[in-house]
Amino acid sequence: MGLQVKLQEVRDNKVFEMFVIGIIIFSSVLIGVKTYEVTGWPMTILWGLDYAVTIFFLFEILLRVAAEQKFLNFFKKGWNVFDFVIVVISLIPLDNSEYALIARMLRLFRVMRLISFIPELRVLVIALLSALPRMGYVALLMFIIFYIYAVIGNILFENINPVLWGDLGISLLTLFRVATFEDWTDVMYETMTVYGLSWVYFLTFIFFSAFVFLNMMIGIVVEVLDEEHKKMNAKDNESQLAKAEARQVAIEDQLAELNSKLDKLLSSEKKN
Amino acid sequence: MGLQVKLQEVRDNKVFEMFVIGIIIFSSVLIGVKTYEVTGWPMTILWGLDYAVTIFFLFEILLRVAAEQKFLNFFKKGWNVFDFVIVVISLIPLDNSEYALIARMLRLFRVMRLISFIPELRVLVIALLSALPRMGYVALLMFIIFYIYAVIGNILFENINPVLWGDLGISLLTLFRVATFEDWTDVMYETMTVYGLSWVYFLTFIFFSAFVFLNMMIGIVVEVLDEEHKKMNAKDNESQLAKAEARQVAIEDQLAELNSKLDKLLSSEKKN
Amino acid sequence: MGLQVKLQEVRDNKVFEMFVIGIIIFSSVLIGVKTYEVTGWPMTILWGLDYAVTIFFLFEILLRVAAEQKFLNFFKKGWNVFDFVIVVISLIPLDNSEYALIARMLRLFRVMRLISFIPELRVLVIALLSALPRMGYVALLMFIIFYIYAVIGNILFENINPVLWGDLGISLLTLFRVATFEDWTDVMYETMTVYGLSWVYFLTFIFFSAFVFLNMMIGIVVEVLDEEHKKMNAKDNESQLAKAEARQVAIEDQLAELNSKLDKLLSSEKKN
Amino acid sequence: MGLQVKLQEVRDNKVFEMFVIGIIIFSSVLIGVKTYEVTGWPMTILWGLDYAVTIFFLFEILLRVAAEQKFLNFFKKGWNVFDFVIVVISLIPLDNSEYALIARMLRLFRVMRLISFIPELRVLVIALLSALPRMGYVALLMFIIFYIYAVIGNILFENINPVLWGDLGISLLTLFRVATFEDWTDVMYETMTVYGLSWVYFLTFIFFSAFVFLNMMIGIVVEVLDEEHKKMNAKDNESQLAKAEARQVAIEDQLAELNSKLDKLLSSEKKN
Repeated sequence: MGLQVKLQEVRDNKVFEMFVIGIIIFSSVLIGVKTYEVTGWPMTILWGLDYAVTIFFLFEILLRVAAEQKFLNFFKKGWNVFDFVIVVISLIPLDNSEYALIARMLRLFRVMRLISFIPELRVLVIALLSALPRMGYVALLMFIIFYIYAVIGNILFENINPVLWGDLGISLLTLFRVATFEDWTDVMYETMTVYGLSWVYFLTFIFFSAFVFLNMMIGIVVEVLDEEHKKMNAKDNESQLAKAEARQVAIEDQLAELNSKLDKLLSSEKKN
Repeated sequence: MGLQVKLQEVRDNKVFEMFVIGIIIFSSVLIGVKTYEVTGWPMTILWGLDYAVTIFFLFEILLRVAAEQKFLNFFKKGWNVFDFVIVVISLIPLDNSEYALIARMLRLFRVMRLISFIPELRVLVIALLSALPRMGYVALLMFIIFYIYAVIGNILFENINPVLWGDLGISLLTLFRVATFEDWTDVMYETMTVYGLSWVYFLTFIFFSAFVFLNMMIGIVVEVLDEEHKKMNAKDNESQLAKAEARQVAIEDQLAELNSKLDKLLSSEKKN
Repeated sequence: MGLQVKLQEVRDNKVFEMFVIGIIIFSSVLIGVKTYEVTGWPMTILWGLDYAVTIFFLFEILLRVAAEQKFLNFFKKGWNVFDFVIVVISLIPLDNSEYALIARMLRLFRVMRLISFIPELRVLVIALLSALPRMGYVALLMFIIFYIYAVIGNILFENINPVLWGDLGISLLTLFRVATFEDWTDVMYETMTVYGLSWVYFLTFIFFSAFVFLNMMIGIVVEVLDEEHKKMNAKDNESQLAKAEARQVAIEDQLAELNSKLDKLLSSEKKN
Repeated sequence: MGLQVKLQEVRDNKVFEMFVIGIIIFSSVLIGVKTYEVTGWPMTILWGLDYAVTIFFLFEILLRVAAEQKFLNFFKKGWNVFDFVIVVISLIPLDNSEYALIARMLRLFRVMRLISFIPELRVLVIALLSALPRMGYVALLMFIIFYIYAVIGNILFENINPVLWGDLGISLLTLFRVATFEDWTDVMYETMTVYGLSWVYFLTFIFFSAFVFLNMMIGIVVEVLDEEHKKMNAKDNESQLAKAEARQVAIEDQLAELNSKLDKLLSSEKKN
């Protein structure tokens, strides 16, 4: 299987990797350029380049599949599947049909290949994903607060402004807006013309959501720091304890020696 | 009391618990669905389902009361009282009266039973509540700042815009708005047409409130981290000290043995 | 000096302290009530109560001065001077003159007596003040950034909108507004009609100021935490080291004893 | 080279340093004053002062170059080059030409000499710059998120509002605006009139960018704290270990002494 070894060499070659990253960036720039008004022959060139990139990506992914000793091993790594799906999806010929918009969007996902290709970004994304479960129950609590306030808002304010409080979905959106402090006083003043005390609704909502959010933030900082410290302390203590123990053992050895010598002395003494 | 044991078995059964959580979520969804325009027979179904849920909750709470060995033990846990009050309140027959809105809101509190039923949420809420006293005096200081600025704002700007500065309450609301940076420059520019220096009022207010707020945040982070570290250090030190002490004691024992042996030697020597 | 001892007893009496705090809160509420439309006899009552509070504060401060063994000792505590100034200032008879507004504001400072009376608030304010120097150089750096951008803004945008960029002061205010994200895009879009690239000015400004601000925050958190840890570690280490040293000394004492005994043995051996 | 020594004395003189800082601040104030409407003879005075400051800076920088033993040593320090460039640039005679605006801006950079002259600010700026690489990959990830959303936004919303979504650049600017919560609902509501589900686009964008941003913040706090702790722990441990080791060595020395004495005893015993 001399060919396969050669393919692996190409795949793991630093220059080839940089070249692929270059093509990914180039293809991202192409996608960006297309958002500008481009017509005539430059458009044709763009179209040609795009076509070339699609074919390059196809060959690159086939190379990586072929370099694998077993065909299916390739798909055991999540990032490979991620790459493969992105490349295959952009092969679907939708360009001259009415689905042209969708085709452009599918090709956009190529930008994400940057993440799967640059190891540091991959680590970062995994770190971010691993932070998600930490937020799970706080997010649930936050959702319960939003849900209760959204229903109350719908019940009280639906007749005042159905555009903002018409149903549960719209009310949730309005509350998210209030939580980002985006023109929240306009929303409040409007309701205060009917219910003079509706500021209680908005202020308690802001306090609750901000309070839960801030405590979540603090909680995450504390948790992450604690984990780090535990790791670090464990390492520190180990090396410290190892040193201290080595010395103690040395002392104990010397003491044992002393003891045995004294035993000899005592026995010789007795004989005397 | 074979019945009571059986009731306890039902109550502590995992499947039953999941079923109750399912019903709570279902009842929350029902409340959400009602915020949409629903009429005719779907409305009747909704009404029927709501009725069924109310009755289910009644039986569920009665089951939990009956499962308790002593009737009053049930009410010794705060979360049980919380559940009981929510269920009882939603039994009040207000549906066809003019208090229908209130009835809907009361039934809304059923969503909160999610908190009392999912242990992780219960822990979270207790943790959040325990963070409140930490904020007590800072909140008081913040209120003093708001109060002083609100009175000054009312004195200076009442004639410029009574809608924003008409009395103490309105001024406090306006200052809260300024503190959230919500269109605060509109408020400021309006007053600057009369008092050219009123930006001093707004900038010092923003600096003071932001400064106190940020320091409160930092203070909480530091405090929580310190508590954690104290706990962790205490545990670490204990195990470390225990190990070190064990070794020291071993050394001291050996030394004591040496000493006694030498004493023997000395005494035998003297005899010689 | 039996009278002075009695005065000290009154001053340090918990009930008297609570009563003074009650009067301070009551006087604060009075100030708040006056921001509402009050006329006729309630106004007269308010005026009377205000008068009574003023006289009470005067007597209270005189009591505390008289309770001091030496007249001037009273003024050695900063908080006493703070109290004294506030009370004396509110004695100035400005009520029926054209300076009524100023009189109301001066009386407002009474609210601040809460801070000097509640020890926890006093500690908090001192802690906040001690955090100021930490921010000194960062504030200076921030000011330099604002200053440079304000002058550039004035040079470039003065002709576009003199209301926002007319001179250095106004430009600084506009930049502070941009830094709080308050309608900053309105400011930017206006300038982009003339200078298409002015978004560079705004985005770099936001990045610089946000970057310096965030790093300041992080810096403070790290600094405060470090101080705490140093304190804690120092204490921990001390007690740990003390224990370890005590044991070491015990071992060394035993060793010294062994040594002297062996010396005796050796000398007796030699004699033999 | 008596002159050079004298120049060095002048350069390192505290009074001279304060004087230069004073001139830098004075020159900054001059620049600020010019943003106000100044005409007639005050303008002439301003012009004269500005001229004098320019000449002073020239002499000051020449003095510092001359004070250096080797001419080129001066340019080995980055901050010196920084100073030199700023002074030389402000010498370019552009005042009475059409480049007057540029001349004013170039002179503005003198304000930055404050940073190179005050050591604390220099340290601060270096600390800030050293924090930049830490943010590198997160910034890249953030940019990828912005890029993908900007292209999607352009594809979907270009026809709705070309002013906000006309091309990639404008879309990026609009997304930055959304990320600062600046009137983001206006942008969203507009698109929702055509695509009812476009809130998904905005909410996921806000969640993604806020999530990445917050995690970056937390990451930096944790990283900085860890570095500090490692340093501190290393130092602490060193001094602790040094102490512990000194005592251990003392014990071991005593034990060795004991051992040698016992050896003597044993040998003398054997002789007996």
